[in-house]
Amino acid sequence: MKNDLTVFEQLESEVRSYCRSFPTIFTKAQGHKMWDVDGKEYLDFFSGAGALNYGHNDPNMKKKLIEYITDDGITHSLDMASTAKKDFLTKLNDVILKPRNLDYKVMFPGPTGTNTVESALKLARKVTGRTEVISFTNGFHGMTIGALSVTGNSFKRKGAGIPLHNTVTMPYDNYIDQTSDSLDYLERYLEDGGSGVEIPAAVILETVQGEGGLNTASPEWLKKLDSICKRWGIFLIIDDVQAGVGRTGTFFSFEPAGIKPDVVCLSKSIGGYGLPFAITLIKPEHDAWAPGEHNGTFRGNNMAFVTATEALNYWDDPNFEKSIQEKAEKITDFLEGLVKKYPEMDGYRKGRGIMQGISSNVEGFSEKVAALAFEQGLIMETAGADDEVFKLFPPINIDEDALQKGFEIIEEAVRSVAKENDLVTS
Amino acid sequence: MKNDLTVFEQLESEVRSYCRSFPTIFTKAQGHKMWDVDGKEYLDFFSGAGALNYGHNDPNMKKKLIEYITDDGITHSLDMASTAKKDFLTKLNDVILKPRNLDYKVMFPGPTGTNTVESALKLARKVTGRTEVISFTNGFHGMTIGALSVTGNSFKRKGAGIPLHNTVTMPYDNYIDQTSDSLDYLERYLEDGGSGVEIPAAVILETVQGEGGLNTASPEWLKKLDSICKRWGIFLIIDDVQAGVGRTGTFFSFEPAGIKPDVVCLSKSIGGYGLPFAITLIKPEHDAWAPGEHNGTFRGNNMAFVTATEALNYWDDPNFEKSIQEKAEKITDFLEGLVKKYPEMDGYRKGRGIMQGISSNVEGFSEKVAALAFEQGLIMETAGADDEVFKLFPPINIDEDALQKGFEIIEEAVRSVAKENDLVTS
Amino acid sequence: MKNDLTVFEQLESEVRSYCRSFPTIFTKAQGHKMWDVDGKEYLDFFSGAGALNYGHNDPNMKKKLIEYITDDGITHSLDMASTAKKDFLTKLNDVILKPRNLDYKVMFPGPTGTNTVESALKLARKVTGRTEVISFTNGFHGMTIGALSVTGNSFKRKGAGIPLHNTVTMPYDNYIDQTSDSLDYLERYLEDGGSGVEIPAAVILETVQGEGGLNTASPEWLKKLDSICKRWGIFLIIDDVQAGVGRTGTFFSFEPAGIKPDVVCLSKSIGGYGLPFAITLIKPEHDAWAPGEHNGTFRGNNMAFVTATEALNYWDDPNFEKSIQEKAEKITDFLEGLVKKYPEMDGYRKGRGIMQGISSNVEGFSEKVAALAFEQGLIMETAGADDEVFKLFPPINIDEDALQKGFEIIEEAVRSVAKENDLVTS
Amino acid sequence: MKNDLTVFEQLESEVRSYCRSFPTIFTKAQGHKMWDVDGKEYLDFFSGAGALNYGHNDPNMKKKLIEYITDDGITHSLDMASTAKKDFLTKLNDVILKPRNLDYKVMFPGPTGTNTVESALKLARKVTGRTEVISFTNGFHGMTIGALSVTGNSFKRKGAGIPLHNTVTMPYDNYIDQTSDSLDYLERYLEDGGSGVEIPAAVILETVQGEGGLNTASPEWLKKLDSICKRWGIFLIIDDVQAGVGRTGTFFSFEPAGIKPDVVCLSKSIGGYGLPFAITLIKPEHDAWAPGEHNGTFRGNNMAFVTATEALNYWDDPNFEKSIQEKAEKITDFLEGLVKKYPEMDGYRKGRGIMQGISSNVEGFSEKVAALAFEQGLIMETAGADDEVFKLFPPINIDEDALQKGFEIIEEAVRSVAKENDLVTS
Repeated sequence: MKNDLTVFEQLESEVRSYCRSFPTIFTKAQGHKMWDVDGKEYLDFFSGAGALNYGHNDPNMKKKLIEYITDDGITHSLDMASTAKKDFLTKLNDVILKPRNLDYKVMFPGPTGTNTVESALKLARKVTGRTEVISFTNGFHGMTIGALSVTGNSFKRKGAGIPLHNTVTMPYDNYIDQTSDSLDYLERYLEDGGSGVEIPAAVILETVQGEGGLNTASPEWLKKLDSICKRWGIFLIIDDVQAGVGRTGTFFSFEPAGIKPDVVCLSKSIGGYGLPFAITLIKPEHDAWAPGEHNGTFRGNNMAFVTATEALNYWDDPNFEKSIQEKAEKITDFLEGLVKKYPEMDGYRKGRGIMQGISSNVEGFSEKVAALAFEQGLIMETAGADDEVFKLFPPINIDEDALQKGFEIIEEAVRSVAKENDLVTS
Repeated sequence: MKNDLTVFEQLESEVRSYCRSFPTIFTKAQGHKMWDVDGKEYLDFFSGAGALNYGHNDPNMKKKLIEYITDDGITHSLDMASTAKKDFLTKLNDVILKPRNLDYKVMFPGPTGTNTVESALKLARKVTGRTEVISFTNGFHGMTIGALSVTGNSFKRKGAGIPLHNTVTMPYDNYIDQTSDSLDYLERYLEDGGSGVEIPAAVILETVQGEGGLNTASPEWLKKLDSICKRWGIFLIIDDVQAGVGRTGTFFSFEPAGIKPDVVCLSKSIGGYGLPFAITLIKPEHDAWAPGEHNGTFRGNNMAFVTATEALNYWDDPNFEKSIQEKAEKITDFLEGLVKKYPEMDGYRKGRGIMQGISSNVEGFSEKVAALAFEQGLIMETAGADDEVFKLFPPINIDEDALQKGFEIIEEAVRSVAKENDLVTS
Repeated sequence: MKNDLTVFEQLESEVRSYCRSFPTIFTKAQGHKMWDVDGKEYLDFFSGAGALNYGHNDPNMKKKLIEYITDDGITHSLDMASTAKKDFLTKLNDVILKPRNLDYKVMFPGPTGTNTVESALKLARKVTGRTEVISFTNGFHGMTIGALSVTGNSFKRKGAGIPLHNTVTMPYDNYIDQTSDSLDYLERYLEDGGSGVEIPAAVILETVQGEGGLNTASPEWLKKLDSICKRWGIFLIIDDVQAGVGRTGTFFSFEPAGIKPDVVCLSKSIGGYGLPFAITLIKPEHDAWAPGEHNGTFRGNNMAFVTATEALNYWDDPNFEKSIQEKAEKITDFLEGLVKKYPEMDGYRKGRGIMQGISSNVEGFSEKVAALAFEQGLIMETAGADDEVFKLFPPINIDEDALQKGFEIIEEAVRSVAKENDLVTS
Repeated sequence: MKNDLTVFEQLESEVRSYCRSFPTIFTKAQGHKMWDVDGKEYLDFFSGAGALNYGHNDPNMKKKLIEYITDDGITHSLDMASTAKKDFLTKLNDVILKPRNLDYKVMFPGPTGTNTVESALKLARKVTGRTEVISFTNGFHGMTIGALSVTGNSFKRKGAGIPLHNTVTMPYDNYIDQTSDSLDYLERYLEDGGSGVEIPAAVILETVQGEGGLNTASPEWLKKLDSICKRWGIFLIIDDVQAGVGRTGTFFSFEPAGIKPDVVCLSKSIGGYGLPFAITLIKPEHDAWAPGEHNGTFRGNNMAFVTATEALNYWDDPNFEKSIQEKAEKITDFLEGLVKKYPEMDGYRKGRGIMQGISSNVEGFSEKVAALAFEQGLIMETAGADDEVFKLFPPINIDEDALQKGFEIIEEAVRSVAKENDLVTS
């Protein structure tokens, strides 16, 4: 039997997780489609948790990648100079940074999201000479001890096995209620020499909290936060690992707020093809690293340079952002409609861009929706502290038909769950 | 001008380092050879700091990789089940674990060395319910805060910007002198309820310290450490990221000591082709993870599964280990000869397997040797707290001729530096 | 010249502070009066920052103390049993605990406020098995590292020289504004598994913040906090070092709220005569200490047992509390009148009981008032992060005339400062 | 029944300890004698763990104290200037500091040993700008978190309930064996940039470890440590709380080594009469405190100033030190004799000055000796991680007869225990 998960049960650690929600063996993928070993086709509304914004195995990137490998292009080069790296740096600057009037220096940490976050925290502490970092409720920044210390989730934090230090959690936008401004809290703490909260080296946040339940920070809130940071000489670090690279409708998620963070963390889709890759963007005046002060074996993943460079061609097209935004509106409309049509769900729409979902107050509702959808061939994740949100994360270049097909499967799943008799509002 | 490093100076962060020691733009590589954009050929005695034990772009792996990409094999799958992953798990078990009578469960952390170390530390703390971890002088385990806290190097540690906690450094084998047993210290600290050192969750160490200057732990010392760990219920974690995968002459570096660590960290060459990859091997009785308790976007790097699986074919051949060991002996002989022949170097041989070098007591000697060698087309790194060691790290499957050619370049470089008049013993 | 401070300048450390605000050499004291070496008399509205609630050298205590010393009563006994200690335990139980339906066990830590706080924090962590402690903005609990970690003042915290860990500061009653309930913030953090704030071992607070600027927690707020603590199994620790022993009008400051804290910290006036003394009151079900787990050389200060026992006689008189409360009302009336009469002060009344003062928004106003008052023979302290509060802290048994005399000096000082032309509102 | 401990069992916390070893109620004391409520007389070979070096209720101090109280001398004055304090500062300088060519500034922290240690650690961190502190195996410095973090005892450390940070334990003199120099270990760690041990702010140690089992540091070892500290700009902090004030035969315990520590911590007997008191002596060039940066309510314990000043009169007599040293020799002779005479004890002498004892390798031997001695009217403590040491701590001014009487009781107790049949060597 080909689709037998026994090998994983026997040989892989209990820590494995997504294979439990999506219990089949995948073997092939293209664009928004995946196939398992039984040949069953799936519509991917998950996109590697944001690592596959351009879908699976994009043909242009694939071509470039095969050429590169065929020609014995350098695969691994630590942080030596390579043509693939040079091309990436140049393209990133030409297509993304310069047009947005950004002059960031590019750092290559280890090729994962948590590594770019760790590098950002270190740099902020070094430059400011301060130790504390402020993060926000329900933020998610990674699993290594530095990144975990700024992550809110208590299950993940307990995994550290040690108390996590040098961080303070402040309330994210609209955390307590819609009427009070959560930044008033932060400001009061900073201004009051008796608050017990030191002026920090940095604040770190996502503009949309991908793992934390699709909470969004408004442009006004971000602007105000930015001005607080400037006032106190605090690094503003935007972790755009999940919300960046077009996911919210612009390349960087913070563009609508008109701010220029001191440091930007990118990973996931910056590599284009789903290859491990991460970069840390640093304002030149903060680039105070000593050579090799933060390093790592795979910071020079040349295959990822190749696909990342090719991926940036999408952004040459001035209509690309618009097309994402149009799809985002369709998703918004679909979800708003769903909320109205199925009051049994007791839900509300969250998120923005192609990073939206529904939070249901009914216990287990969202998980059931995701499970039913999977049976019907759609892969979709839940998020939030109690998995109360189901989350639409299709590729940002998905076509209209596939999007509609996904909507249908989801609505059908919602309809089924809504019919159940024993719904309990939590 | 093609070989122009200006782009890197302008756009890349100051943190870049190896491109400063090897200032050229590399573009192509095959086996033990690399070429820069000017077509100059280099003999690679560095091997990506141990990430390229099988050399660059191994033809068999390359073939499999191109086939996989061409067929739209899954590239990115988080930790969902995939055929590529299944094949890797099966092959690893069949070729490496079972024959060595090891029944480890395999965990896939983020694909870098520091991520596997972080996962190992978390697990040890969770299972034992203790917080402290003992590491050893001059150990190197990574740059994220958890891994950095068990790393000895003070420059790297300061980079944290915060005090590093929950760790104690004990003296590595032969740290103080050759006559006293450094484990006596450790034992005394554990036995004495007044020592100020708690019984730790784990000890973590490399059997050969790759970055720390090629210090080696003897099999007897490792055996004794293992028995101390068993006595006190301490996890023995071997970080085999650099010394593993054949680098010392056996697949795991600890095999000659006849021990079975509780956890083994592997990265670098486990992927075979230089692609980002890391695994954490865990004794089944310790596999106490909750699903998703430690996770990461790129823990399912399927291209690395493909090349890693192919790479393990090397180990099907019973003569492979022997061939490595023979080469290691040649390196030993060459280095011992060099030490005798050039007393001006005031050096001594260090390391074992294909992980040897010379530590020179003359200030700057080793750095000059490496620089001269580079001019002559050989890439070689220095190690140790003061870069006092030059380090021979060719691929473990390098052929005889290339090895000899490397020896010649190195000897010539040593000869040149030895002739200088102003040598100062530090 | 007798009143020459040169010796202090030459031999005492720069850390000395009150002798700078009150630059004279004191030599004698009785009740609410102090005299310096020049024979100048001072009215003491400071009372050793709450350590002299019964005034200086109370005649009854003095008599008992001299008898005890004369008879060679045990002076120092570590924590061995002594008759003086037995008498104190019995009296405390009979006069204070039993009548208030409290069955606390009594612990004798080192004889200072910070030591009782340290013991309380340790016990809470031990019993709950948790590490974090929640304190409140502008709380003050002591100068040793454990107590300092729950103290808000940034100047004091920086004195630690190391980051302070395992604590979270929450907003005290009315911290942000009068309309929102600051406990909503705390509750949300505890309820939300993604808040980044762990369920703590304890919350620690003063019901009136003596050093933090005379902020007061309302009975309702305390009751709600108590119920939150009960819900989550969190130790409620009331630090009654300054506000306890009658200072607010009842023996314990928390009596009006009708709560029974898990742990109560007492020091300062519990000794009666100003001798070093501290006790930690512990609910019997939490008395999980192992013998000697927390100790100290001077936990058996027998002279303080003697005076403390005698002091409790005040509380035999059912009218004693009433008399304090009447004086408190007079102080309230006086201060409210002052605020109205001198709008130049831009002040408002703070605190409760005989622990009240005026916070002036005019830069330096309160400091000037205190300085002028000192010139006129009244000793009075300022408090708050910017010393913006002047603080009336006479003995709680001060007589009517002395109180009036103090009022006059203070009003005269306020009048003088209010007349200045260059008042700047901060 | 007067000698009834029920009150303590009912009302005092389980943390009480010495009253368990010495289960009687003491009521009166004079010199080396104590009496319980039954009138039973005890010979005190414990001296309040070093807080009563001059014995109980010294007649001269008693006289001065009664006079002071009778005259309404200031009892409590925070850190305001008082005549009692002035007299103490002057006397300390004239009799102790100047004759020893020491120019320390005097700081008054809270009146306990742990408070002076906390102040010393803070200052060292402030002046050096470093965070780490090196302490030594089996050191004991106090129970508050800062002091506890440099204390070796694991039972005490666990009491913290949190991991203790920013400290490293190094081996005390002769920790591993008599042949190797434990400072080689420390030096190697400091010199090696890869050791994982930062250059610390301070080292802190006792020259004789009172609680840790009477281990002694030789003058040579101390001199070498002092020179290491000077070389690296590390504060040398001598915690002379127990070993100071004549206990070892000189006023400061470090005098024989000819060193001048940067900071000296004194408490216990510096007050003379057993009243809570502590001072921190600081080299003037390090007195970098801001006013009030470290404070405390009882730092101005004027009664202790009075007795401390009177106590220093002992040191006016040039023969005082000599008399202590002669007694110390007698104790040495007695203990050496005992070791030889009772091989069943399997013991050896430890300590120096009037701070000596015997460590027995026989399980429970020392505890039994102390218990038997108590029955015979001699109070004596055990020390060491397993209470393996019984410790002779009579007043340093004890007379010859009392000393001999103590010897007799102890020998009788040793003889009895040695006769037991079931002695087990641990």
